[in-house]
Amino acid sequence: MKQDKILLAHGGGGRLSYELIKETILSAFGNPILNNLDDSASLPSECHRLALSTDSHVVKPLFFHGGDIGKLAIFGTVNDLAMVGAGPYYISVALMIEEGLTMATFRRVIESMKEASKEVDVKIITGDTKVVERGGLDKLFINTTGIGYIPDGINISGRNARVGDLILLSGTVGDHGIAILTEREGFQFQAEIKSDCAPLNGLVTDMLDVSKNIHVLRDPTRGGIATTLNEIALQSGVEMMIDEAKIPIREEVKGACEMLGLDVFSVANEGKLVALVPEEDGEKVLEAMKDNPLGREVAIIGRVKGDSKSRVILKTLIGGKRILDMPSGELLPRIC
Amino acid sequence: MKQDKILLAHGGGGRLSYELIKETILSAFGNPILNNLDDSASLPSECHRLALSTDSHVVKPLFFHGGDIGKLAIFGTVNDLAMVGAGPYYISVALMIEEGLTMATFRRVIESMKEASKEVDVKIITGDTKVVERGGLDKLFINTTGIGYIPDGINISGRNARVGDLILLSGTVGDHGIAILTEREGFQFQAEIKSDCAPLNGLVTDMLDVSKNIHVLRDPTRGGIATTLNEIALQSGVEMMIDEAKIPIREEVKGACEMLGLDVFSVANEGKLVALVPEEDGEKVLEAMKDNPLGREVAIIGRVKGDSKSRVILKTLIGGKRILDMPSGELLPRIC
Repeated sequence: MKQDKILLAHGGGGRLSYELIKETILSAFGNPILNNLDDSASLPSECHRLALSTDSHVVKPLFFHGGDIGKLAIFGTVNDLAMVGAGPYYISVALMIEEGLTMATFRRVIESMKEASKEVDVKIITGDTKVVERGGLDKLFINTTGIGYIPDGINISGRNARVGDLILLSGTVGDHGIAILTEREGFQFQAEIKSDCAPLNGLVTDMLDVSKNIHVLRDPTRGGIATTLNEIALQSGVEMMIDEAKIPIREEVKGACEMLGLDVFSVANEGKLVALVPEEDGEKVLEAMKDNPLGREVAIIGRVKGDSKSRVILKTLIGGKRILDMPSGELLPRIC
Repeated sequence: MKQDKILLAHGGGGRLSYELIKETILSAFGNPILNNLDDSASLPSECHRLALSTDSHVVKPLFFHGGDIGKLAIFGTVNDLAMVGAGPYYISVALMIEEGLTMATFRRVIESMKEASKEVDVKIITGDTKVVERGGLDKLFINTTGIGYIPDGINISGRNARVGDLILLSGTVGDHGIAILTEREGFQFQAEIKSDCAPLNGLVTDMLDVSKNIHVLRDPTRGGIATTLNEIALQSGVEMMIDEAKIPIREEVKGACEMLGLDVFSVANEGKLVALVPEEDGEKVLEAMKDNPLGREVAIIGRVKGDSKSRVILKTLIGGKRILDMPSGELLPRIC
């Protein structure tokens, strides 16, 4: 392609659109289903429960320490599908591009998506490309929507929390949000903070291998674990007791949050999960998670205490108790 | 909800996000699958070939004569799924909103999506809401991604055009593009031009009822019928002969195109389809289409002539022949 910038005509549906798709997108993602280039992708017949999940990615900046918008888009949707136990994955990629984006930036994102989708063995089977005039959007947004098949015997939902369930957290919190914020605002901390952006499907497979009784899985992205735990409490109508001392947090993330006046429990993560499992399966799920690189720092952070109220109680470091509420404002827009 | 504008916090994943989703989105689209509010929607087990299609809608203005972005988003994805013969439909809705959008506008779009999804019996089963700071995007973009089941015995693809196939066009071309353009640029024409925005699934059902041998279906959106016919020619490796005199065009659309210097064959449609059918089934498919309100003006516009070249030949009104190429520039950005 001769152009070194994205033009409006790249989104017009004519010759330039066709060339852009053929030369960058098909050459990166090509597979027999995508290559058909029909209005809809057709999959072979399967008899399974199906999971469907969608996410738009508007992260700013496009590239950050530990990831970029492309990787985030693939892993984000894979993670949402993994949270109901589904796999393998078929994904649609819808690109919304600002006129004038450099072709080099565009190719770099596509390359990153290609690598990410290889890493998790996801097939990109359909897509859409829109180009908006300069100023109509900020550089590049990506929507990824995925489907996956849910194996028989698995029933994971935010509605399934039960009294007595153990609450597991797969690792440290706050890394992604703080990485984006430092990148964006130009903060300098002593240690460089890296996004935890990672695909959780392998970890979930390892967990399901030892227990089919996992009640709830959720990845605490926007709104952090404060939002995730409250959502589960509301959906299941349960009260949780969380022990602050058990929640893994990197020292540098803790320091950054203190300095910036942020509640680390409300900060986004992109490679962590919260699992609610019945007590009898807790130990084996914990061990399975520890054996996976993405679950090495797993901790049991609390327990479902009752079902008379939908709320989350935090036992604080100094021994007091307070309600851990959903964040009510917005400190970190465009975090994912 | 007390706010009369969308705030960044509505996209933060915290309390305001939760309220926005509960009070506007769930109350409009609620169904047992969506109401679970899990990271992925889970569907019951089915044994079928699956179709997946995605589309981002960035149309400007949000409301226009004959439709709006919400209706376009639902019908657009339904139409893409219908073009491989799939149905019924499950859709994900991903909203990208500019901070400061009025709640009244937002509600009006949601209401329109609700009505549109009722009209075609599509279920919205999962979604995502992002809010971007003022200036980060222009008002509202909507991605809709849909799945549908393809009935056994149906095999419709842009690759299936065969020599001898009749080429049917369901109605007039150019209406949507010209409607948007006049709305946007404030042109005044004698007759008001209305977008043809409509769901094509019913028409496709009527066609499939009389013939399982439909080879190709495609809705000529961005890039118009010039793009659609060329795409099919390229995918199937065939040469088509199109008779300009047979292509239905409204007088007012023709006039507007002449005045604006636009090629009507490159202008977008949102409620039309091109069908390629074997000659022996042509008559019955034509009759079935005529009986449907959206196919009343159907015409046989040409035929697949050979398979030595991938191109589209237009027999012009004055009796000459020219190659009908894909449009190479971009005259109408943000048309859908």
